[in-house]
Amino acid sequence: MTVSPIVHRLASAMLVLATGAAGAAAPALKELPPKPSVADVVKASKPGDWRPLDPDNTLYMDLPTGRVVIELAPAFAPATAANIRALVREQYFDGLAIIRSQDGFVVQWGDANEEQPRAYKAAKTVKAEFTAPMKSAGAFTPLKDGDVYAPEVGHAGGFPAARDPKSGQAWLVHCYAMIGVARGNEADSGNGSQLYVVTGHSPRQLDRNITVVGRVVSGMPLLSAQPRGLGAAGFYEKPEQRMPIKQVRLAADLPEAERSRFEVMRTDSATYQAVVEAQRNRGGPWNKVATGKIDLCNAPIPVRER
Amino acid sequence: MTVSPIVHRLASAMLVLATGAAGAAAPALKELPPKPSVADVVKASKPGDWRPLDPDNTLYMDLPTGRVVIELAPAFAPATAANIRALVREQYFDGLAIIRSQDGFVVQWGDANEEQPRAYKAAKTVKAEFTAPMKSAGAFTPLKDGDVYAPEVGHAGGFPAARDPKSGQAWLVHCYAMIGVARGNEADSGNGSQLYVVTGHSPRQLDRNITVVGRVVSGMPLLSAQPRGLGAAGFYEKPEQRMPIKQVRLAADLPEAERSRFEVMRTDSATYQAVVEAQRNRGGPWNKVATGKIDLCNAPIPVRER
Repeated sequence: MTVSPIVHRLASAMLVLATGAAGAAAPALKELPPKPSVADVVKASKPGDWRPLDPDNTLYMDLPTGRVVIELAPAFAPATAANIRALVREQYFDGLAIIRSQDGFVVQWGDANEEQPRAYKAAKTVKAEFTAPMKSAGAFTPLKDGDVYAPEVGHAGGFPAARDPKSGQAWLVHCYAMIGVARGNEADSGNGSQLYVVTGHSPRQLDRNITVVGRVVSGMPLLSAQPRGLGAAGFYEKPEQRMPIKQVRLAADLPEAERSRFEVMRTDSATYQAVVEAQRNRGGPWNKVATGKIDLCNAPIPVRER
Repeated sequence: MTVSPIVHRLASAMLVLATGAAGAAAPALKELPPKPSVADVVKASKPGDWRPLDPDNTLYMDLPTGRVVIELAPAFAPATAANIRALVREQYFDGLAIIRSQDGFVVQWGDANEEQPRAYKAAKTVKAEFTAPMKSAGAFTPLKDGDVYAPEVGHAGGFPAARDPKSGQAWLVHCYAMIGVARGNEADSGNGSQLYVVTGHSPRQLDRNITVVGRVVSGMPLLSAQPRGLGAAGFYEKPEQRMPIKQVRLAADLPEAERSRFEVMRTDSATYQAVVEAQRNRGGPWNKVATGKIDLCNAPIPVRER
């Protein structure tokens, strides 16, 4: 079993420094007892704690450097997910490129050619799916430490989400690795033909202002480490700066043997609660203060490859 | 005047998509009136809204790809800042390298050679400066929308900070571009010879667990877009994967003519309050919902080059 870099990242307290000596006048910090780490909890998980990706909601974006695996979230954005499927099935993305990398913000892909854009049959506009009725967004597992932006945050269907019981609306949250649908000024101008992924601190000001349609479950480094674009908003100014997209495919359209085999931890499982708790209050010896809080975008969502 | 990428990022609502048509069944979203953007507020600022970097607290880390400019925060970490100055003055970092890039977390630099580490005269241990007394941390300008992790958050001396009036302690916060001091399990084992910068969603679980010593004010893309390391915790496994550091110098040790000329907006100015408000409630036509909230790490701290 391998686990995703996201699990490694959050499980790790490895800010390793190879100096030995103790001594000096360190302030008296309490020694915390050791506790299971996120990696320990993942290791002790049971098969039922995991769900396979649904092939109808899984995209493979193949770059020259490797494969990015994307999980779509039709419970929150059914019309947009359907249009992305349509675009993929007419091979719209094949040969297009990564066109933008804005530091600490997003990486974006699609058609760089604004004057003679590639033609396609899929819908040119899709209704705004910035929020969804709570009842159609599925079961919601709340986090208990609050949030600056939303009345309630937690997970729904394996995605970081927020909701407002007063309005009855739920929405996906712009955490690291979440995928949104670029648009112009018109609310319905985001049709899925240009997508972006969050690569910096979660830009929560975008929540409820744009359709969020899924998450990168594997391959983030292929996107996040792209050189930053030097044009306005991080767009690449020269064609040779753009990384080409070899192809984007729906997992369901590939034979079994060609599919990646990722599983995502069920965020409504007791094991996931243990993951969250392991990250909320990390044990010694490295940690000196048990934080006792966690914000939504610091809650890891474990992924593994079978 | 140029402004830093950080200003561009947050000022921009440029998730541009070149589809024209309106139409379709978009939900009825209110049209927000246009408002000054962060960039507009920055443009209208006065000279007194800015402070030059103090040469005694400014480091230039010169990489083959360009210069990273770092502002140290001695108000929060005086002993650590002093030891970093000592390391720089004995040219400790020259010829060392970027040794780690963990996706969505940190990039780290220092000596990769654990078996025969480079010798140096500066202190091998420095007392933990994970928090500082509120009275020595300087004036604090609070943000009003709360925080998941800390009782109060805001800015002190131009850095994102938190404080707890009950304990009387203040601390720097692990926002994007903040620099921390790698350490081993001993609290005093972080001496500044290995430093890291936050490159993903703010890892707030590190707050109060490690010394934070400053911020990258220019050159973040030179660090954040480093290819991710494939070893545990993102360490590079092969020497050729490490980007070498040409030299690190204290601005005060260079002749005037060789110094970069950056200014940072004063976070205790009325203009900075306007910057924060411009980001809290962004205007139309692109934005459809005025967020009405901002978390500390989404509050931009404008930087410009004279």
